[in-house]
Amino acid sequence: MKNNLDKISRDGKIMLLAYDQGFEHGPTDFDDRSVDPEFVLNLTKSGLFTGVILQEGIAEKYYNKNKEYKKTPLIVKLNGKTAFQKGRDPVSLQLCTVERAVELGALGIGYTIYVGSEYEEEMMVEFAQIEDEAHKAGLIVIAWMYPRGKKVKGKEESRDVVAYAARLGLELNADLVKIPYTGSEESFSWVIRSAGRTGVLAQGGKKKEEEELEKEIKGIMKAGAKGIAIGRNIWQAKNPEEVSKRVEKLVFKD
Amino acid sequence: MKNNLDKISRDGKIMLLAYDQGFEHGPTDFDDRSVDPEFVLNLTKSGLFTGVILQEGIAEKYYNKNKEYKKTPLIVKLNGKTAFQKGRDPVSLQLCTVERAVELGALGIGYTIYVGSEYEEEMMVEFAQIEDEAHKAGLIVIAWMYPRGKKVKGKEESRDVVAYAARLGLELNADLVKIPYTGSEESFSWVIRSAGRTGVLAQGGKKKEEEELEKEIKGIMKAGAKGIAIGRNIWQAKNPEEVSKRVEKLVFKD
Amino acid sequence: MKNNLDKISRDGKIMLLAYDQGFEHGPTDFDDRSVDPEFVLNLTKSGLFTGVILQEGIAEKYYNKNKEYKKTPLIVKLNGKTAFQKGRDPVSLQLCTVERAVELGALGIGYTIYVGSEYEEEMMVEFAQIEDEAHKAGLIVIAWMYPRGKKVKGKEESRDVVAYAARLGLELNADLVKIPYTGSEESFSWVIRSAGRTGVLAQGGKKKEEEELEKEIKGIMKAGAKGIAIGRNIWQAKNPEEVSKRVEKLVFKD
Amino acid sequence: MKNNLDKISRDGKIMLLAYDQGFEHGPTDFDDRSVDPEFVLNLTKSGLFTGVILQEGIAEKYYNKNKEYKKTPLIVKLNGKTAFQKGRDPVSLQLCTVERAVELGALGIGYTIYVGSEYEEEMMVEFAQIEDEAHKAGLIVIAWMYPRGKKVKGKEESRDVVAYAARLGLELNADLVKIPYTGSEESFSWVIRSAGRTGVLAQGGKKKEEEELEKEIKGIMKAGAKGIAIGRNIWQAKNPEEVSKRVEKLVFKD
Amino acid sequence: MKNNLDKISRDGKIMLLAYDQGFEHGPTDFDDRSVDPEFVLNLTKSGLFTGVILQEGIAEKYYNKNKEYKKTPLIVKLNGKTAFQKGRDPVSLQLCTVERAVELGALGIGYTIYVGSEYEEEMMVEFAQIEDEAHKAGLIVIAWMYPRGKKVKGKEESRDVVAYAARLGLELNADLVKIPYTGSEESFSWVIRSAGRTGVLAQGGKKKEEEELEKEIKGIMKAGAKGIAIGRNIWQAKNPEEVSKRVEKLVFKD
Repeated sequence: MKNNLDKISRDGKIMLLAYDQGFEHGPTDFDDRSVDPEFVLNLTKSGLFTGVILQEGIAEKYYNKNKEYKKTPLIVKLNGKTAFQKGRDPVSLQLCTVERAVELGALGIGYTIYVGSEYEEEMMVEFAQIEDEAHKAGLIVIAWMYPRGKKVKGKEESRDVVAYAARLGLELNADLVKIPYTGSEESFSWVIRSAGRTGVLAQGGKKKEEEELEKEIKGIMKAGAKGIAIGRNIWQAKNPEEVSKRVEKLVFKD
Repeated sequence: MKNNLDKISRDGKIMLLAYDQGFEHGPTDFDDRSVDPEFVLNLTKSGLFTGVILQEGIAEKYYNKNKEYKKTPLIVKLNGKTAFQKGRDPVSLQLCTVERAVELGALGIGYTIYVGSEYEEEMMVEFAQIEDEAHKAGLIVIAWMYPRGKKVKGKEESRDVVAYAARLGLELNADLVKIPYTGSEESFSWVIRSAGRTGVLAQGGKKKEEEELEKEIKGIMKAGAKGIAIGRNIWQAKNPEEVSKRVEKLVFKD
Repeated sequence: MKNNLDKISRDGKIMLLAYDQGFEHGPTDFDDRSVDPEFVLNLTKSGLFTGVILQEGIAEKYYNKNKEYKKTPLIVKLNGKTAFQKGRDPVSLQLCTVERAVELGALGIGYTIYVGSEYEEEMMVEFAQIEDEAHKAGLIVIAWMYPRGKKVKGKEESRDVVAYAARLGLELNADLVKIPYTGSEESFSWVIRSAGRTGVLAQGGKKKEEEELEKEIKGIMKAGAKGIAIGRNIWQAKNPEEVSKRVEKLVFKD
Repeated sequence: MKNNLDKISRDGKIMLLAYDQGFEHGPTDFDDRSVDPEFVLNLTKSGLFTGVILQEGIAEKYYNKNKEYKKTPLIVKLNGKTAFQKGRDPVSLQLCTVERAVELGALGIGYTIYVGSEYEEEMMVEFAQIEDEAHKAGLIVIAWMYPRGKKVKGKEESRDVVAYAARLGLELNADLVKIPYTGSEESFSWVIRSAGRTGVLAQGGKKKEEEELEKEIKGIMKAGAKGIAIGRNIWQAKNPEEVSKRVEKLVFKD
Repeated sequence: MKNNLDKISRDGKIMLLAYDQGFEHGPTDFDDRSVDPEFVLNLTKSGLFTGVILQEGIAEKYYNKNKEYKKTPLIVKLNGKTAFQKGRDPVSLQLCTVERAVELGALGIGYTIYVGSEYEEEMMVEFAQIEDEAHKAGLIVIAWMYPRGKKVKGKEESRDVVAYAARLGLELNADLVKIPYTGSEESFSWVIRSAGRTGVLAQGGKKKEEEELEKEIKGIMKAGAKGIAIGRNIWQAKNPEEVSKRVEKLVFKD
């Protein structure tokens, strides 16, 4: 495991570029530039990102067709759901096999568990099977542990709920969990301790003011996180390269 | 993939004859002529269509028994549902295997995902498995991405909903998506950009006045679509051969 | 396929004796004679029936133990449901494998799809798998296409509903469909055209007055049906042999 | 099959000792003696019972550890449900495989289908698969056909309902059905005729007055049953050995 | 089996340290010390515990990385659910395979069945499959038989309910059941008799006053239990080592 994590780390830290929002939110997240996977994948040429997160289709039809893109390690997201089902407790199921992820050249896989959803058990069962398969194939296993659904309504970013989500990632043998930031270094530090030897990545979330983003990343990293996964705050920015650089400094500074 | 698409393209464009309405709508779509699969399959002898879409039974009992028919490439539709369940969110499941499609001589397969239906996840999961299998077998994978169900009621042909549906096709690694036309070249152009390297086919839909149909196809092709799939507008016409020719000119003109 | 159908045809026509009512309706359909499978199977010794329809148990414990019975081809009904669940939309699932049917010496298999039931998709999916298996094993595939359930309430024998049911049989690659008679030669003729190269068998249904039965069979055969499947009208009759003969003349006359 | 039945018959009759009530009803059925499987299994040493019915655990941990016990043939009950779910339509699913039953030295297997329950189809499907497997392994297949659930409320022991249940056992290819007694020789005789070549065992049911029990067994055997399965009336009795003898005489007298 | 149990027994008694609460309750059960799996696993170095219960992740990332920890036998808990779904009848499903448990070096596996839950049948079916697999692999099978859900509300620790739960463990061929204490030696003695040759472990439950805990363990062991599984009462204590010793004396005294 340790060795694997190194493949998507630099100085022990991780900074992933996420671009599966076309699946989860739809093209309303995009503008004329970011709708094009090439625009976003070209951002990885900066060499700042230690990995890029894609669904199978874009991995196959873009990432895999371009040597330059393949310099940045690939994380294939294995499940997904659309934004159409808002109002219902979310469920997201496997859409890409571990075998396919390997064929696509992935070093890791991602899978979302909506903790608190009435379907959480179903997703945990599926994740548990994928985790086995992926580890056997030598892949890094990243669990998107997202509190969501009626049972955690309004508490999606609260300390105890996120700490529980993170802990589940450890108990389920994820190598990394991707979770929401709880808003303060102190609370996030407890979350990270709850995850134990499972590393913590904070999700970037919605586009934020630069100052807010900077403050957030500082808190995340000070709390002891392994790194971040960031998407909209990069490719929705007017100057994605500059933002990438500033974020990179915050993540990798010692 | 590229090579595969060529097999059902002419000058890079695609014009498919659809004849699975007996399954989806029932014989009320037919008259004394069109109820007979031979009548419809004979229309492919014009050589104008770059492919024909059939369910397994008609592929086996008609297409496969006639050398003339086999000159036009076969797309086997792998799932289907009846019109009896109107009023419920639609679900359509696999009724024919990829293996059978290969035996029937198909060059491609089709599968409908009702985007927005409460069963969309179930269909995406099934599609994802079929997509793998079909690509391994060297087949073209066409996703019918149809917005349908309570969550998208009244927005089945709106720009953002159809663009989302098209994007899902790309993320799911479909080679082509078959989607409704959004009504204007401008909006459909955004849909096509959302689909990226996944080609877009507009569905023909209900029988229309000739002028309306012509306008629609012009808009579709100008927006940058790969082509169309057309059924009722051909075989419900008084003079299917003439309509085929006129449509063909609109699709393939440059 | 053609060759297969010949095995249960005489002069191109089919007359099947159905005796699975013990499963579908229970012994209330029987009297002191017909409760005994031997009584009913002895009726096949007349040589008038081109096949007999049984569930696995009676095929195993009676048909298969008697050389005389085995002269009449066997159709094994693979699914079934009881009459206890009246009031709910019907669902009938696989209870006997194709492999077992072959072991029992069957030449064909039957499977009911309740068209219009909220479970129709589930049955179509199961039928589709059985159809593949059965065809690979060289068996004739007969789809009982019975309109039933809330969506078709009161229209179980109407022209358009039955034509749709018959068409689904063709699209699903059934060799024969067993469907209710629509009441007139004209309407049933459209049903038969909708089924195309899939042959049509009319179901016998409840015990009728002789005159009515005769009229019905005439209409069915004139409309172009391949034949009938008949049960209660034979073995509930006082004189089953005589009725068998009369029915046989109506089916096979030219 | 015939040969198999002989293995659990004496003079063509069957008398089974049932001891799976710990699963179906819980220890409230037991007293200080009968709570101990050894007490009950020791009753088989009389040699009066032609078989004993156990769930996997007691078969493994008691029956299988004692040569004396193994002189009485073993029937392993493959499914089971608890009494906690009263008020809901019952469902009982497979908890022990046919392979395990064979390893345990069983000559037969039992499976309950709650006829009339809204889950009856699910149980029939599972039974059908088990029946195949068990017959291939050379085991006797006994179907507990118990009318139960909203649809048969108050009619659990009525002639037509029980006859239907018995008939389903035949249609499903059970070798024996275990069913409730309908209360009179006449009605039970019709039930037995409905089961045809599938033998009928009457269930013992709740503890009864000796006289009532005697009358019942007489009626059951006169009606033509193959035998009985009896539990509480034996091991809840003050003097189980004596009751065993009296019952045995009623079952085997001629 | 006997031999297997010996591997986690000392003088025929069992004392297991449970540390899967991070999964079942979340980090709210923990303080700054106990949130760290190392703190808890270090407690096993006393040599007092005859086994430790962990979920896969902690077994893999902690237990398996430290030779000292591996001196205490490992029980891997194979299913789990979160505390988020309170208010619904509980369901807990398989998250780790038997194969993985073997790879992790486990001598036994644990699986919870919520007896009385509307999902109890589903869990019993899954347990039954795991039990087979685990026994084939030579592992000890421990069934957490926890009364829970609407049907047993308020009776989770009552004599008859717990005795039924324990009996189910025997019928299902568990080697040990882990169940709640019923509060008195007398009632628990009946529970233990109901479990027959399946050994009984009492669960520790919530943190209690020392005196209460002591009284409870005395009652449990006097009633004839095989031992206990204890977690919070150990690692939530101020002085876990001392409590371990006191508990050990109560369990192993003779």
